[in-house]
Amino acid sequence: MSPARLVALDWGTSALRAFLLGQGGAVLEQRAQPWGILHLPDGGFNAALQGIAGDWLGAMPGVPLIACGMVGSAQGWREAPYVPCPAGADSLVNGLAVFDVGAGVRLHIVPGVRSPRPDVMRGEETQVVGALALVPELAARATLLMPGTHSKWVDLRDGGIADFRTFMTGELFAVLRDHSILGRPAQAAAVPPGTSHDAFDRGVRAVLQQGSATALLFSARTLVLTGQLPAEQSLDYLSGLLIGEELRCALPAAQVDGQTNALAAGGTPLVLIGEDALVARYQRALTIWGAAKARLLSNTAVAGLWHIAQRAGLLHPA
Amino acid sequence: MSPARLVALDWGTSALRAFLLGQGGAVLEQRAQPWGILHLPDGGFNAALQGIAGDWLGAMPGVPLIACGMVGSAQGWREAPYVPCPAGADSLVNGLAVFDVGAGVRLHIVPGVRSPRPDVMRGEETQVVGALALVPELAARATLLMPGTHSKWVDLRDGGIADFRTFMTGELFAVLRDHSILGRPAQAAAVPPGTSHDAFDRGVRAVLQQGSATALLFSARTLVLTGQLPAEQSLDYLSGLLIGEELRCALPAAQVDGQTNALAAGGTPLVLIGEDALVARYQRALTIWGAAKARLLSNTAVAGLWHIAQRAGLLHPA
Repeated sequence: MSPARLVALDWGTSALRAFLLGQGGAVLEQRAQPWGILHLPDGGFNAALQGIAGDWLGAMPGVPLIACGMVGSAQGWREAPYVPCPAGADSLVNGLAVFDVGAGVRLHIVPGVRSPRPDVMRGEETQVVGALALVPELAARATLLMPGTHSKWVDLRDGGIADFRTFMTGELFAVLRDHSILGRPAQAAAVPPGTSHDAFDRGVRAVLQQGSATALLFSARTLVLTGQLPAEQSLDYLSGLLIGEELRCALPAAQVDGQTNALAAGGTPLVLIGEDALVARYQRALTIWGAAKARLLSNTAVAGLWHIAQRAGLLHPA
Repeated sequence: MSPARLVALDWGTSALRAFLLGQGGAVLEQRAQPWGILHLPDGGFNAALQGIAGDWLGAMPGVPLIACGMVGSAQGWREAPYVPCPAGADSLVNGLAVFDVGAGVRLHIVPGVRSPRPDVMRGEETQVVGALALVPELAARATLLMPGTHSKWVDLRDGGIADFRTFMTGELFAVLRDHSILGRPAQAAAVPPGTSHDAFDRGVRAVLQQGSATALLFSARTLVLTGQLPAEQSLDYLSGLLIGEELRCALPAAQVDGQTNALAAGGTPLVLIGEDALVARYQRALTIWGAAKARLLSNTAVAGLWHIAQRAGLLHPA
């Protein structure tokens, strides 16, 4: 096994993931705990760090330690204030929050990024750096779509984040499913909800035809009430409505230089980064919308943490 | 006191209200209980009826009894199936569900209305009949807006409901306030949330300028994060976004006969029916949107129940 060069943490609201990285950023070992910053174990941040990576840090004195995500927010361990757009790897390196967590271990936290809309991201900026490290040709111009609880649409230009927008699609879906009348048909369904591509596609198409999801939301209930949609497919239909609405609003915003439908015309490469099942849903929706096929990347946070650590001069010679 | 002519019930999901009506539909006495169809007391529907109006029914054998609302849904006491649009008072009379609740008392339940979108209403149809009884000149053509958990926009034509649409504005606000990240700033605010007209107006204007609330939702958080909106005003801003979005989608739909912006031009009278504080919010938003001033009516369900009972021949000669 190659020697360890970096301990990297992806520390969000609901989960903490730790990676032991070797030469070139190769993942030697990885661990995960449900210790997001809102769900810390007794003993708080330090106990969480020791619990997930204490043995690595103890066995390798001096190994550098870096983290991204909500751990750097005002509610985190130490705030790493947002850096403004346009923001590239150098801005992030300059904005690193660095402090001693005890026993001579220094933690470096990557800052989030803000735009004047106003909008903010924290964690995704590191995925952006990772995507650029993995696919350097994106640097000139690309749109990165990172779907999730809060989907981010990032305009990449000249190697940095020129601008971005947040859509609360994932959170909207979750609160409507769990707390609104729209979730009830699926809960009461005779068969458990599966995944219906047809119902999802129908939701996306409805938004494309109607021009807005707002007037369609209630149809996730009335179609079931009137026997036109099986109850167990109603959440897939709702997902189609919400993702369709995100595309309706974001795709025009992703146009650049006044080109009409630049994405659809292939003018700007679109890259989808995220978990497989969710990325597949967005791919279906993009196809229905007539947008060009997106390039797919898995979570690129680890590559981003490696690249930022390297750029910051944290990596000792092998 | 004039003799009682009708016992009328407005029986919804979360509340039961009972009215003893005299000559001309005058309210002689009224009562309310939190016995909506999802919150019945022990003994169910019959116990609720006896609890709220048993003394009236016992003291006046033969007094007619009528109800509207979710009590007539598939989850209610007895289903009164939806009647199709166009639907006027006669359709509702023909669709009354009538059954014996014991001791010779017959309950008449007003049916809901469905449109082919598909969309459904149950309870609001009775308010529509009440509004028409109170303001007969609306019969030719009007748009009725009944804001609430599920806002209804009703196109009235030739004395009946020609079409309607549901917007889940009130429920969306409630689930976002109580269960999403957008509710947190207000919960954590140093001073309790009050009512900020400025923040509400700002939300409405943002939708008007941006053209959609979807890309703006997250700003209810980021404006607070960046110090541009006091935390205690964030829910008023969110309310402005959601009500603005409803107007954005509904006002064009309320245009009739291809007239551009008929409402704004005063082509079709707009009537707002509902609770005072909520109606005032919609009035503010309509003004910002440039729509003509709406006529205001309080809850018209009682007038509707009286009118339907009369039309059905239930009222004995005084």
